[in-house]
Amino acid sequence: MAAPSSNTCGLTERSIRERVPPLLTDLYQVTMAYAYWRTGRHQEPAVFELFFRNNPFGGGFTLFAGMQDCLLFLRSFHFTDEDVEFLRSVLPPATDPAFFQFLRGLDCSGVTLRAIPEGTVVFARVPLMEVAGPLAVVQLLETSLLCLVNYASLVCSNAARFRLAAGPKRKLLELGLRRAQGPDGGLTASRYTHIGGFDFTSNVQAGFQYGVPVAGTMAHSYVTSFTSLEEVLPKTLVAVNGDSTPVDIILLTKGWLSRVCELLGSQPGKIHEGELAAFLSYAIAYPQNFLPVIDSFSVGCSGLLNFCAVALALCELDYKPLGVRLDSGDLCRQSLEVRRVFRLCSKHFCVSAFDSLTIVGTNNITEQSMAELNEKENEIDVVGVGTHLVTCTQQPSLGCVYKVMLF
Amino acid sequence: MAAPSSNTCGLTERSIRERVPPLLTDLYQVTMAYAYWRTGRHQEPAVFELFFRNNPFGGGFTLFAGMQDCLLFLRSFHFTDEDVEFLRSVLPPATDPAFFQFLRGLDCSGVTLRAIPEGTVVFARVPLMEVAGPLAVVQLLETSLLCLVNYASLVCSNAARFRLAAGPKRKLLELGLRRAQGPDGGLTASRYTHIGGFDFTSNVQAGFQYGVPVAGTMAHSYVTSFTSLEEVLPKTLVAVNGDSTPVDIILLTKGWLSRVCELLGSQPGKIHEGELAAFLSYAIAYPQNFLPVIDSFSVGCSGLLNFCAVALALCELDYKPLGVRLDSGDLCRQSLEVRRVFRLCSKHFCVSAFDSLTIVGTNNITEQSMAELNEKENEIDVVGVGTHLVTCTQQPSLGCVYKVMLF
Repeated sequence: MAAPSSNTCGLTERSIRERVPPLLTDLYQVTMAYAYWRTGRHQEPAVFELFFRNNPFGGGFTLFAGMQDCLLFLRSFHFTDEDVEFLRSVLPPATDPAFFQFLRGLDCSGVTLRAIPEGTVVFARVPLMEVAGPLAVVQLLETSLLCLVNYASLVCSNAARFRLAAGPKRKLLELGLRRAQGPDGGLTASRYTHIGGFDFTSNVQAGFQYGVPVAGTMAHSYVTSFTSLEEVLPKTLVAVNGDSTPVDIILLTKGWLSRVCELLGSQPGKIHEGELAAFLSYAIAYPQNFLPVIDSFSVGCSGLLNFCAVALALCELDYKPLGVRLDSGDLCRQSLEVRRVFRLCSKHFCVSAFDSLTIVGTNNITEQSMAELNEKENEIDVVGVGTHLVTCTQQPSLGCVYKVMLF
Repeated sequence: MAAPSSNTCGLTERSIRERVPPLLTDLYQVTMAYAYWRTGRHQEPAVFELFFRNNPFGGGFTLFAGMQDCLLFLRSFHFTDEDVEFLRSVLPPATDPAFFQFLRGLDCSGVTLRAIPEGTVVFARVPLMEVAGPLAVVQLLETSLLCLVNYASLVCSNAARFRLAAGPKRKLLELGLRRAQGPDGGLTASRYTHIGGFDFTSNVQAGFQYGVPVAGTMAHSYVTSFTSLEEVLPKTLVAVNGDSTPVDIILLTKGWLSRVCELLGSQPGKIHEGELAAFLSYAIAYPQNFLPVIDSFSVGCSGLLNFCAVALALCELDYKPLGVRLDSGDLCRQSLEVRRVFRLCSKHFCVSAFDSLTIVGTNNITEQSMAELNEKENEIDVVGVGTHLVTCTQQPSLGCVYKVMLF
């Protein structure tokens, strides 16, 4: 696990002001604040409760998340001169100028937040947070607090449902950044799906800022960017232990490829040389972290054979290959075939490293298809989930509300 | 329309570095960059195209959006020492230290972006952007560019579909901030739904930063926070023109309320005094901007009558009330009744302002229910849309991809 950078607590605190400026709110919060102020009710003590009315996804529970950001937001809440000047331009010209003075001096020093601990299982209609303070101030906080809790809790709960569907053994990888509602949606997803039970994220910033373990190796574009073994550079690798003479890894791999083809009765002519070159280049760069995506052309006729050849060459040099990723087609069926070949190689070539190779599956996984993995025979160790996790396709909003309890 | 603050162009540019730091990417972009660098291919010229494979929502078009942010991102793209140190902690220990030096010196000076203009109608499989430059750099940009284009284009297209469903006359108000994927999701939604055809947003920051016209008056919590006319302060209002003597607006409104009840055959006993107090307080604060939400208790028995009484009092003092908002129940049916009462008041009391009052409808509007407004008789002038607009419930992701075209 990557620990968060030592400076990232400060980073999170600094960035809240950028992410959630006090103007990031519905205009009616400001117009209401003025109306309260005009009536002299702005300092009246008030209590609002934040809750939701139904568990999401037709389920029986929700995980509460977003509270840390709410606290940081409250701590940073104040209007700058620039903010106030903008509000002056938006509110009617007859608005009393003293109101803008009042806004300029506002902060949350008079506000008390009581909340359920972050990550707790919660249920419908139970207050997640109770916000008490001067009426005008707690009113001005509504939209921002809802925005910070709604999606965080939704995506955290969605992650927990994927976790439950996956069972305790399978590792889960979140990779939804490119499909989220913009940069902050992606970062929020990576952060709270980890709390919800995901093991890793592909999102590097989530590792940097929140210490979520990050994972990832290569995309199809990497594989298809190679066309021939000529492109492999350097062409040698030094064994882990012992002899420091560079070994011609291409030659070594070619030898293993022939043996693998022979073992499996495969046709060497169907093997894609560019893919082999990509795998080799990657293995030379990361001899201890070799986990290529093997379905760029054909898993059975090319990707799996190329993987085995390169991995066997690495094993011969005492490196330990990690595994493969499948990103298309019937993941269950393919994982069985991949595992069968791994076992065959392990036995035939006496390489025990092939007994513990990881198979990663990533292909438009939904909560339902995750659950089906428990019913269908398969050998997938790690599942990557993107779109359906971060967009919460089944129900893309939680619907928290912020209701006044007491004036 | 609120013009964007003069400083907000700089604000947008500054904030891109906070919103989209270079670590906000999938780890495999970095591992691939290293593998390219290790093979000596990192400077090789490469061209990637960004496109989508199917129009969203089963529709026939998409609006391209997000390009301005992509440009700002390219301009700001560079790894700090802190970024690079974090990457060093994540990549395998054997990674060549010279690679981190290379990362530290990277920027997009060698990158060319060719794109379709922002806001253009686009179709499936047509490149929206073409990114050319050194292989390692354009690879490192993939996730961030996808993240910036995917949701922006999706929500912009969704807004255009709502706009088409609404027809050209009805005004549309976006109010999804509290339901979006975090603060940036909400701001992105407000910005691009405006490009997609929405007239206003409730999101003040979108007005400040992007010049989107903002709108909003009051929530139910404001109405229910009042219990009696005792709470109305000040109790007087000065007429727009002429006499500067403060008029007892409570007394004036009470008189109008009797006349309205008599005209409509309503029972004054069913009228909620707290609601009347809330309307009066708001009208005193905003005599030229009176547009209350009238369904906190009962539209027909209380809210509509209270509105008419306060609005008629305002008209007597030469102010021009704006209208009402309906936020629950059958919006069409209620809008017809509200308009009937407005016309009756206009005729009976000879107040022409009642002929041009606006009726705003906001209640879980979908694209389909928007389209139904054209089939069912109704008097709704402005429709507010939140959840289904910003979460794009029908299809919450666009699925843009970034594919290599040329090495």
